Amino acid sequence: MTTTHAENRNGNYPGKGVGGAVGVAILGKGTVGTEVLRLLGEFSDNLEQRIGGRIEVRGVAVSNLDKHKDAPEVQGLTLTDDARSLITRDDVDVVVELIGGIDYPRELVLESLKNGKSVVTANKALVAAHADELSQAANEAGVDLYYEAAVAAAIPVVGMLRRSLAGDQVQRISGIVNGTTNYILDAMTTTGMSYEDALAEATRLGYAEADPTADVEGHDAASKAAILASMGFHTRVTYGDVHCEGITQITPADIEAAKKSDETIKLLAICERLTDDNGATVGVNARVHPTLVPNEHPLAAVDKSYNAIFVEAEAAGRLMFYGNGAGGAPTASAVLGDLVGAARNKVHGGRAPADNPYADYPVVDFGEVSTRYHINMTVNDRVGVLADLARTFADAGVSLSAVRQEESGDEAHLIVVTHQAREKDLQVIVDTLAKHDDVRSVNSVIRLDA
Amino acid sequence: MTTTHAENRNGNYPGKGVGGAVGVAILGKGTVGTEVLRLLGEFSDNLEQRIGGRIEVRGVAVSNLDKHKDAPEVQGLTLTDDARSLITRDDVDVVVELIGGIDYPRELVLESLKNGKSVVTANKALVAAHADELSQAANEAGVDLYYEAAVAAAIPVVGMLRRSLAGDQVQRISGIVNGTTNYILDAMTTTGMSYEDALAEATRLGYAEADPTADVEGHDAASKAAILASMGFHTRVTYGDVHCEGITQITPADIEAAKKSDETIKLLAICERLTDDNGATVGVNARVHPTLVPNEHPLAAVDKSYNAIFVEAEAAGRLMFYGNGAGGAPTASAVLGDLVGAARNKVHGGRAPADNPYADYPVVDFGEVSTRYHINMTVNDRVGVLADLARTFADAGVSLSAVRQEESGDEAHLIVVTHQAREKDLQVIVDTLAKHDDVRSVNSVIRLDA
Repeated sequence: MTTTHAENRNGNYPGKGVGGAVGVAILGKGTVGTEVLRLLGEFSDNLEQRIGGRIEVRGVAVSNLDKHKDAPEVQGLTLTDDARSLITRDDVDVVVELIGGIDYPRELVLESLKNGKSVVTANKALVAAHADELSQAANEAGVDLYYEAAVAAAIPVVGMLRRSLAGDQVQRISGIVNGTTNYILDAMTTTGMSYEDALAEATRLGYAEADPTADVEGHDAASKAAILASMGFHTRVTYGDVHCEGITQITPADIEAAKKSDETIKLLAICERLTDDNGATVGVNARVHPTLVPNEHPLAAVDKSYNAIFVEAEAAGRLMFYGNGAGGAPTASAVLGDLVGAARNKVHGGRAPADNPYADYPVVDFGEVSTRYHINMTVNDRVGVLADLARTFADAGVSLSAVRQEESGDEAHLIVVTHQAREKDLQVIVDTLAKHDDVRSVNSVIRLDA
Repeated sequence: MTTTHAENRNGNYPGKGVGGAVGVAILGKGTVGTEVLRLLGEFSDNLEQRIGGRIEVRGVAVSNLDKHKDAPEVQGLTLTDDARSLITRDDVDVVVELIGGIDYPRELVLESLKNGKSVVTANKALVAAHADELSQAANEAGVDLYYEAAVAAAIPVVGMLRRSLAGDQVQRISGIVNGTTNYILDAMTTTGMSYEDALAEATRLGYAEADPTADVEGHDAASKAAILASMGFHTRVTYGDVHCEGITQITPADIEAAKKSDETIKLLAICERLTDDNGATVGVNARVHPTLVPNEHPLAAVDKSYNAIFVEAEAAGRLMFYGNGAGGAPTASAVLGDLVGAARNKVHGGRAPADNPYADYPVVDFGEVSTRYHINMTVNDRVGVLADLARTFADAGVSLSAVRQEESGDEAHLIVVTHQAREKDLQVIVDTLAKHDDVRSVNSVIRLDA
């Protein structure tokens, strides 16, 4: 074995590495698992230098061996479908979970942690649903739980929130964290095509899955919002706490109206610290919805399937992180970064900063959140209609910042932009407008909130 | 004392924290030091929760007490000019160096490390010049040496290279790492003003120091390039290894020519892995020079005094990090993030990944680096001059991608854009052109290399 820095300094390995090596179990051999295995081979010598010990893959578990019968071996190891036996082996130090789903990986991750194995996972749904339980198991066993790859792949936002901003106070996180929906909205913006056509193109080009529900309905982004809010605000926010709206209702007319206002529609995950008049934190909120982003904001220019996360912190100011938010290689890069961290700790001792929801702020209901709105209506084109409708807003205590009217025949399109208003007040207004005799239809309500 | 997570789990503090607290010495009380002290007060309870122990400032050292006679105390502590006594106190665990300069802070940092104190520094010049010596001292003492704030303040590029990309292979780093020069070039680009006027405006608005040499000549960026290259390529690159050109020669004509080519001139720090025909790494290079960046590249849009660092890694692909690269609060945010890391290790045990230049690639001379060039000349306006001059490039084995000619009276302005060419071949061409009978002047040579 090559002599390493750790050996030079210490004479032996202080941690759990068996025979100078760190044993790794890989669960799952899909796109990411395959790429992780490839990179482990290609970067083997470099990883040894960076860790101070060799990574040795002890086994690769898959759920269905039949699917892999054409390639039943990887790097000399026979694939197994007995994940439970693999993760409890004495010579396994770190378990890498790349399965997907929630219940089955949850069992395997908990079992691994309880057996003193550190865990690296890319599973956003698992972390967003069960972070409390998983963290507790990791803390009790004194091992690491890493999940950089669960949010925006190789964009190191988890490490940034956990370490780099550990001495600061995060005020707000707003991110484009789903590449599929960003591709669709960007295609609609650049070509004027419909949502349905853009989705078809995304599917054809491999940016959308055969069943795109989790992406287009915002569920994937909501998991990431829960993780980002939890870390940014040191408060446990779970998937169920996140208000979630997808992009399926966005029309070419909405895109066109946004352009006229020098704005771009993006699906944002927004995590916000809410304060009282004295600046004291009263709670946090996390939400996912289509959002009008002013074109001068850096998020507006994030095109194609790229991801970007914009963070505002008290001392650091505005930071943005941009890159590939999905795909086998970028996700594998994040998994390997975590694996190097977990393996270093096995070799040298020490633990990564764990989940630490000490602040325990209340999660504020979306109805209490204030933002601005673009409301697009079709109304009767009669004298006084604008004044009547403006009264509806004033009666609910919401002031307007702009009204734009376009006539066509005997009807008119009215776009109303509000100042800051509470979500629940706005919903009352929208209900009132929908019943108004002069309102033929409320076509869309889109928040302006980058 | 508040009960902390660490106490809950462990019953006591495993590390060197004295009495459950982590003792900190602050060296320097300029803009950053003042801000660090302010944030340590404001975030005190939060930092305790994140670290698992309280931060207690044991003393603040300044070089000249007379300068602080109006405010000789900070948080109940009398300022001292005896830094050596402060850093060797038994109850100091972490030393934060915010002095500036090289020789004096070098002595203090070495003395701190040898005495078993972890060190957090924001001193790019010190790290770029003496990283080897400092790392060795930290390794021998088994303590941490952190310097996130030395590059681009709160943009966490050091942590990203050291941890997040630890399982990947960095191919190239190109960054806008100096806010002063970016402000000046942006002002020249948006208003057409001269370098001198833009510098005067930057000075008036506080973006440039009274003596702007270190910024405008590229020295500050060169220190950062050395640090980025060292970490990115696991190879020791020092300040003296970095080819460095500043922005003082950039003219409004250069800016105008860039606009015509849909490019923007930026001062870039470029760190590059050089490979042979088989893709094997033959060496690395780091350089700072004005660079034409295509407008579609994300770095082109980085305006005002913002910094941004663009990283290309084999698996992660393209990543960009954007934010405030200077200023008291953003720099203090990075210092505090490092301080939390160093303090956590003091409380819980463990060490951050240290400098690890195991790869030890040769630093390739700038003359061997290939890039593309825009050459702007004033030439005699006679038939055949373009063919003659093109021959000069061909004779040196350099092919051209574009030639643009603008006539004015009996002279013509010629802008030649080359394909990839070696720096030393290009220098031969420029020397030949300068002596050519038909060339009245070579006005500028700017590299195209984002």
